[in-house]
Amino acid sequence: MATKTTRTVAIPKGTRDFLPADMAVRQRVMKLIEDVFKKYGGVTVDTPVFELKETLLGQYGEDEKLIYELADQGAGTNSALMLRFDNTVPMCRLISMYNIKQIKRYVMAKVYRRDNPNQSKGRYREFMQCDFDIVSAHTTLLPDAECLTMLSEILRALQIGSFTIKISHRQLLDGILTFCGVSADKTRTICSAVDKLDKTPWNEVKAEMLQKGISEVSADNIGKLVCLEGKPFELLEQLEKRPEWTPDQNGPGCEQIRKGLAALREIFGYIKIMGALDHLTFSCQLSRGLDYYDGVVFEAVSTDPAVGISSSLAGGGRFDKLIGNFMGDSSPLRAVGFAVGIERVFAIYAERQKETASIPQAQVHVVFKEETCIPTALKIISQLRGLNIASDFADSPYKKGKQLGKQLTVCDERAIPVVIILGHENESSVSVKNMVAKTQVSSKNIEEAIEYVKSLIKNN
Amino acid sequence: MATKTTRTVAIPKGTRDFLPADMAVRQRVMKLIEDVFKKYGGVTVDTPVFELKETLLGQYGEDEKLIYELADQGAGTNSALMLRFDNTVPMCRLISMYNIKQIKRYVMAKVYRRDNPNQSKGRYREFMQCDFDIVSAHTTLLPDAECLTMLSEILRALQIGSFTIKISHRQLLDGILTFCGVSADKTRTICSAVDKLDKTPWNEVKAEMLQKGISEVSADNIGKLVCLEGKPFELLEQLEKRPEWTPDQNGPGCEQIRKGLAALREIFGYIKIMGALDHLTFSCQLSRGLDYYDGVVFEAVSTDPAVGISSSLAGGGRFDKLIGNFMGDSSPLRAVGFAVGIERVFAIYAERQKETASIPQAQVHVVFKEETCIPTALKIISQLRGLNIASDFADSPYKKGKQLGKQLTVCDERAIPVVIILGHENESSVSVKNMVAKTQVSSKNIEEAIEYVKSLIKNN
Repeated sequence: MATKTTRTVAIPKGTRDFLPADMAVRQRVMKLIEDVFKKYGGVTVDTPVFELKETLLGQYGEDEKLIYELADQGAGTNSALMLRFDNTVPMCRLISMYNIKQIKRYVMAKVYRRDNPNQSKGRYREFMQCDFDIVSAHTTLLPDAECLTMLSEILRALQIGSFTIKISHRQLLDGILTFCGVSADKTRTICSAVDKLDKTPWNEVKAEMLQKGISEVSADNIGKLVCLEGKPFELLEQLEKRPEWTPDQNGPGCEQIRKGLAALREIFGYIKIMGALDHLTFSCQLSRGLDYYDGVVFEAVSTDPAVGISSSLAGGGRFDKLIGNFMGDSSPLRAVGFAVGIERVFAIYAERQKETASIPQAQVHVVFKEETCIPTALKIISQLRGLNIASDFADSPYKKGKQLGKQLTVCDERAIPVVIILGHENESSVSVKNMVAKTQVSSKNIEEAIEYVKSLIKNN
Repeated sequence: MATKTTRTVAIPKGTRDFLPADMAVRQRVMKLIEDVFKKYGGVTVDTPVFELKETLLGQYGEDEKLIYELADQGAGTNSALMLRFDNTVPMCRLISMYNIKQIKRYVMAKVYRRDNPNQSKGRYREFMQCDFDIVSAHTTLLPDAECLTMLSEILRALQIGSFTIKISHRQLLDGILTFCGVSADKTRTICSAVDKLDKTPWNEVKAEMLQKGISEVSADNIGKLVCLEGKPFELLEQLEKRPEWTPDQNGPGCEQIRKGLAALREIFGYIKIMGALDHLTFSCQLSRGLDYYDGVVFEAVSTDPAVGISSSLAGGGRFDKLIGNFMGDSSPLRAVGFAVGIERVFAIYAERQKETASIPQAQVHVVFKEETCIPTALKIISQLRGLNIASDFADSPYKKGKQLGKQLTVCDERAIPVVIILGHENESSVSVKNMVAKTQVSSKNIEEAIEYVKSLIKNN
C-alpha cells in the first residue's frame, strides 16, 4: 500500500473525473451519436476553449455573469479571455470569420459555467454539450425536418427506452397569445409561464398569468388552446379547421397562427416521407426557454417509466435571428439545430448498461507464473494483436497461487472474457480460462490455445 | 453576400479553429492511434480542463510561469484554478486520488501554455497532447517493451513514411559521464549538451562542455562514447564487451553503465519476440530534455526525406521518481510512457493526404430542380441512410442550370463521390453522376438509381 504524501489531491468544485469504466460508456454513446450525425452528412469543427471577451459578452443576457474569465497575467496576455459558455456562439463566430455559406455541423465539447454546482441535480461547472446545427441560405423547411428525423434516429439508436419528440412553432404560440388578448410586450413572459405546464398544474400557471396582468378570460382561453396535444397531422387538421382563424379571418394573431400551422404542415410532410412521424407529438404548450428561437421548437422527452416520465433528453429549434445577429441583416443565412442532453443520456445509458454487462477493456488477458514464461506470453500477445484482438498481459509473474486469484479478480472487474494462464501446472503449460462460463481448458501449444480463444471470442 | 456587422470576429492569439476538412484528418489520425492503444489493452480517462493551483504548482520548474490562471471572480470561486499544462500531472493526481493500482491509460486532450506563440514553428497556446502511460507495481521491464512495440505499430499504422526509434537509458548515459570524469552536480547540464548532438555539430557541443567546466580530455572521451549508434543487439554486445566496465571493474560509473546495459538487454529481448526490433536504433547520445526520466528514454524520428530527416515524431521514457512524488516513497508504483507529437503527425498526414484525395464528408449528395422533387429526394435519402450510406441533400431547389453547376462544384470541394440529380430533364427524371469518373447515367426509377449508387460506392 502506498503511503500518501501530504500533497493536495482534489479537483475543483463542480468538476468531475471520468475513470476508464465511465469513459467506456461515454465513448460508446458518443460514437453511436456521431455515427448518425455522419450518416446525415454532418461534419464537425473545433474551436478554442477560450474566446475573446468581445465575442462572448452581450449574447447570454443575465447568464453572462456565469462566464469564467482568465486572469490578467500581464505582458503577453494582450486581450481578455473567457472560457466558452456554450458551443453555439463560438459556431456563429466561426461562420462569420470564415464566411461559411453552408454547414451541417455537429460538436461534442465541454462548456464552462461558473454556476452554483448542484451535483445531485446533475448541474456542473464543466460539462459536455452535444450540438447539431444546420446553417445555410435555405428556402425550404427541409433542415427542420432533417433535424427532427436525425434526433429521432439518435434516440432510437441509443436504446434508452421509449420517447416522444414534442413539437410546436413559436409563431403558433405567439399567435395564440395575441389572439387571446396578450399584448406584444407580455408575449415572452406569458410564453415562459406556458412553458412550465409540463411540470406545473394549470391552476398555478394560471395564477402566474393573472399576476402578470392577464385577465381571467384571456388566461382561460389560453389554457384551452395550449393544452391541446396529439398526433401531428390529426391535431394540425383540427387546428386548421377552427373557424376562428380560417383564411378569411383577420383578427389579432390569426395571420401568425396560420403561418405557424403552415410551417408545421410542411415539416410534418417531410418527416412523414422519412418515416419518423410516429415519434412526434404536436404539443401546443411547448415553448422552450430560450428567447432566441423564432420558428419550430421541439423537445424530446422519455416516456419510459424506468427512466422517469417527461425527463428531457434533447431540445432545439430554429434561430434565424441569432445567426443574423452575427452575419448582419442582409445575410441570407438561416439556422436550425438541437442539443442532446448528453450528460443525462450518459447516465441513463450507464444505468441500463449495468443491467446487462460492463464494457470489456480488452478481449484477452495473459498471465504467467514464472519469468521464464515471458517469451511465450509475448508470442501469444503478438499473435492475438496481429489478429486484431485487443489483448493485454500481466507485467509481472504471479508465482504464488494466491496472486493468480487476485489477477483473475482484476480481469473480472475489467470484464475481460478470456484469460490465458501460462506455467501453472508446469513450465510449458498453457490454459485458457473462459471467464464468462467459468470453464478452463488446457491446450497442447500456443496455436491450439489461440484457435480456442478465437472460437470463444467469436461466440461472445 | 452577407454584410458583416462590426462585431469582433477573431480568436485569441496562439489558438486555432479547425474547419471540417482539418477535423476529418484529425479524427482519422486519432482513430488510427486510438485503435492501436485499445488493441494493447489501453483505457482512457478524462480530467477537468482546470486543476487546483496546488496540484499544478511545483511540478514544471521554470515553465510554471507559463500556466494560465483563471480570474478571481469573487464569491463562488473558492479556490484558485489553473488550466492544465500537460496531461501527466493530472494523471498522477488522478492515480493518487482514486488509489489506482494499475493502469494503461491513453489520453488525447488539449493543454494550455501561456507561451510566446510562434505559429510558424508550430508553437501554440492551445494544442493537443496524445499520451500513453503504464503505471503499476511491475517487477519486469515488460511495460517499457510494450510502449516501444506499441509506438512502432502506431507509426507504421499512420503510414507517414520511414522512421526509427532511437533508444538509450539514463543510467547508461549518466554512467558514461561519470566514467569520463563529470561530477554528479554537472551530470544534468552535460546531458542537455549531449542531447543537442542530433542538431548541432560535435565542435559546438564540445565548446559548450568546456565552457561548463569539463576538461578537454573528458569531453573527447564523452564524444567518442556518445556518438556510438547502431542496431540494438550489435551495439549492446559491443558495449558489454568493452574491458573498461566488465563486471570486475569498479571504477566510477561502471556499475551504472552495466545496469543501463542490462536493462536495455531485457527490453531488447522482449521487443525482439514481439517483432518490432527492426524499428529501433540504439543511440548512446539520446538523453531527452525532461529531467524526470530515470530509466529507458526513446525518441521516434522520421527518416523519410519527404518529411524532413530527424523530425521528431514521438518520445518517452521511464519516470518512476515522478509518480513516486505523488504516491509517496513507499509506493511500489512505477511508470513508463510516451507522447506522440500529434500536431506534427496531423501536419505530415494532412500533407500526404493531399497527394491522394481529401476525405469525403458524405458518400452521396442529392440535388433537385423543383420543389415538386422533394418527396423523391427524401425517399432516396432515407433508403440510402437505411443502407448505412452517409448521405446529404440540398435544402433548396436549384431551378436554374447555373445553380446546378454551383452545387456540383460544392460537392467536388467536399470530395463527395456520387451526386443524384432529380428533375433535370423532366419532373420525374433521376440521374446519377459519378463525380470521380465524371460520367452521368439516367435511371428509370429510384430503385435502379440506388442499385447503381451501391455499385459505385462498392468500387470506390
